[in-house]
Amino acid sequence: MGREFQLIQRHLALFGAAPQVRVGVGDDGAVLALPPDTELVVSTDTLVEGTHFPELTLPEYVATRAVAAAASDLAAMAAEPLAMTLALTLPAADDLWLHSFSEGLARVVKQFALPLVGGDLTRGPLSVTVTVIGTVPHGRALCRTGARPGDRLCVTHTLGDAAAGLAVVSGHLKSLEALTPDEALFLEDRFYQPTARLDWVGWLRDNAHAAIDISDGLLADAGHLSSASGVGCRIDSGRLPLSSALASVEKTQRLTWALAGGDDYELAVAVPPAVDLPENLTQVGEFVSGAGVACDYIPDGLTGYDHFGI
Amino acid sequence: MGREFQLIQRHLALFGAAPQVRVGVGDDGAVLALPPDTELVVSTDTLVEGTHFPELTLPEYVATRAVAAAASDLAAMAAEPLAMTLALTLPAADDLWLHSFSEGLARVVKQFALPLVGGDLTRGPLSVTVTVIGTVPHGRALCRTGARPGDRLCVTHTLGDAAAGLAVVSGHLKSLEALTPDEALFLEDRFYQPTARLDWVGWLRDNAHAAIDISDGLLADAGHLSSASGVGCRIDSGRLPLSSALASVEKTQRLTWALAGGDDYELAVAVPPAVDLPENLTQVGEFVSGAGVACDYIPDGLTGYDHFGI
Repeated sequence: MGREFQLIQRHLALFGAAPQVRVGVGDDGAVLALPPDTELVVSTDTLVEGTHFPELTLPEYVATRAVAAAASDLAAMAAEPLAMTLALTLPAADDLWLHSFSEGLARVVKQFALPLVGGDLTRGPLSVTVTVIGTVPHGRALCRTGARPGDRLCVTHTLGDAAAGLAVVSGHLKSLEALTPDEALFLEDRFYQPTARLDWVGWLRDNAHAAIDISDGLLADAGHLSSASGVGCRIDSGRLPLSSALASVEKTQRLTWALAGGDDYELAVAVPPAVDLPENLTQVGEFVSGAGVACDYIPDGLTGYDHFGI
Repeated sequence: MGREFQLIQRHLALFGAAPQVRVGVGDDGAVLALPPDTELVVSTDTLVEGTHFPELTLPEYVATRAVAAAASDLAAMAAEPLAMTLALTLPAADDLWLHSFSEGLARVVKQFALPLVGGDLTRGPLSVTVTVIGTVPHGRALCRTGARPGDRLCVTHTLGDAAAGLAVVSGHLKSLEALTPDEALFLEDRFYQPTARLDWVGWLRDNAHAAIDISDGLLADAGHLSSASGVGCRIDSGRLPLSSALASVEKTQRLTWALAGGDDYELAVAVPPAVDLPENLTQVGEFVSGAGVACDYIPDGLTGYDHFGI
């Protein structure tokens, strides 16, 4: 490993400071203190250039997307963040690239309270693997299996923004002229810097039956929740929470992104009937006896969903 | 992701069964039970084809080397294995390749008692990132910082075999004619299927002051131990434990591999004077006041070490 790589590894060690980190980067392994009577939640995500983010994405956004995608799994399990490791493969040790990547990393380490306690830097085509570790009180992890008929299907914040943002940055948004510059920037930002919904962990643990992070699109991930729970699900496209920016986009397009776009990392949640819904949690459907996902609008080209008419 | 990739991911989920795994692969994250009053030890290693293992290495050996390299860090921290995650990047979904990889993986999952609880499979040039998680009783992790003047520098089993094995498989061993076929196979095996010394965890925790796994070669890793502990170190090349296979190799060459070869994943350990050394733990030197590593034999091309003459 070259000298530049060693330098950046030392630089990344700066992101490992937190009260729970007893020994950080620099020994054979990191040593982490645990809250008493907890279980561990672990998840790994790899993002590859050209597949999970466009080529020439600003390095700081490679970092923010990779960490948000992984941290989002902790939120969906109702786990508190403990620490993460990061394996970065880079074609060359490029100072400017690493400087920008570090800036994004510093931001998400702080935003998600996820100290970086280990990692590896290797030479090769650009990819990032993030492993996140979180804790839950004994027996309180929120799994995909808990949805019951009668539960409401709810989603956090707004859907479809990140898919629209990707279309904006890729130049594939036909109705771009409908957006103000501020709206276009908002959508781009939702793609490049998604928010892992870790601030929902406490509420979810006290109120929800099941949750999943929306990484494959609402229809697909509601399907994953439903099949893991052994129930069916009905979604009403008229109830999808949309940002004002996405609301300016043509209807077919915006519904497609909100139902099939998977880049927002919002949460889909099964909430029992008696629970009051807080702000930014919107009912979009309900779980029913049976199997499969039905929706009044199915985007072109998607299969495996039932259409129940408008 | 193609259908083959989904199939193999399901196949890999079979390696996640263990009493501590409450929820395995298939939810947003795995849920792991923890022994009471423990701290966590975490380490990540990436192995890239062409850098960390030769091109055309049998896939089962890619798996065994990658997992052993990571698990070895748990041994060096005196941590019990809890679980691992694995991110695999592959140029194509090749059934035969994945079948062979899975065979190696099954073997090390069992050998090291490390259930596979998460992972990601992506398309790209071949590399493997393994993150291992272990536990230690509160405050009992064995760090690099604990060596004291007067401690003996000891190593587990034999050194240099894997470096010789790499030379055998690469056709770079000049004195190959000195080896019997069995000796050549033994050395190859030490390269392709190194043993993480997790069976030493109990002994180390009760008896050692400090430990490191030898991944950069004894001279380099004794240097890491010494500088982290603020002491110096003297190594006697005449005491290096060598396998009978390596002992058949020409002297300069075998000493070079034993002092500078980093592929055995044996442990270098600081043992206080009063402790009896068990079988397969050999004193090769001692820690002294001061700084730096001195040895009576310094392989050509290595710098930063003192020569104390024979």
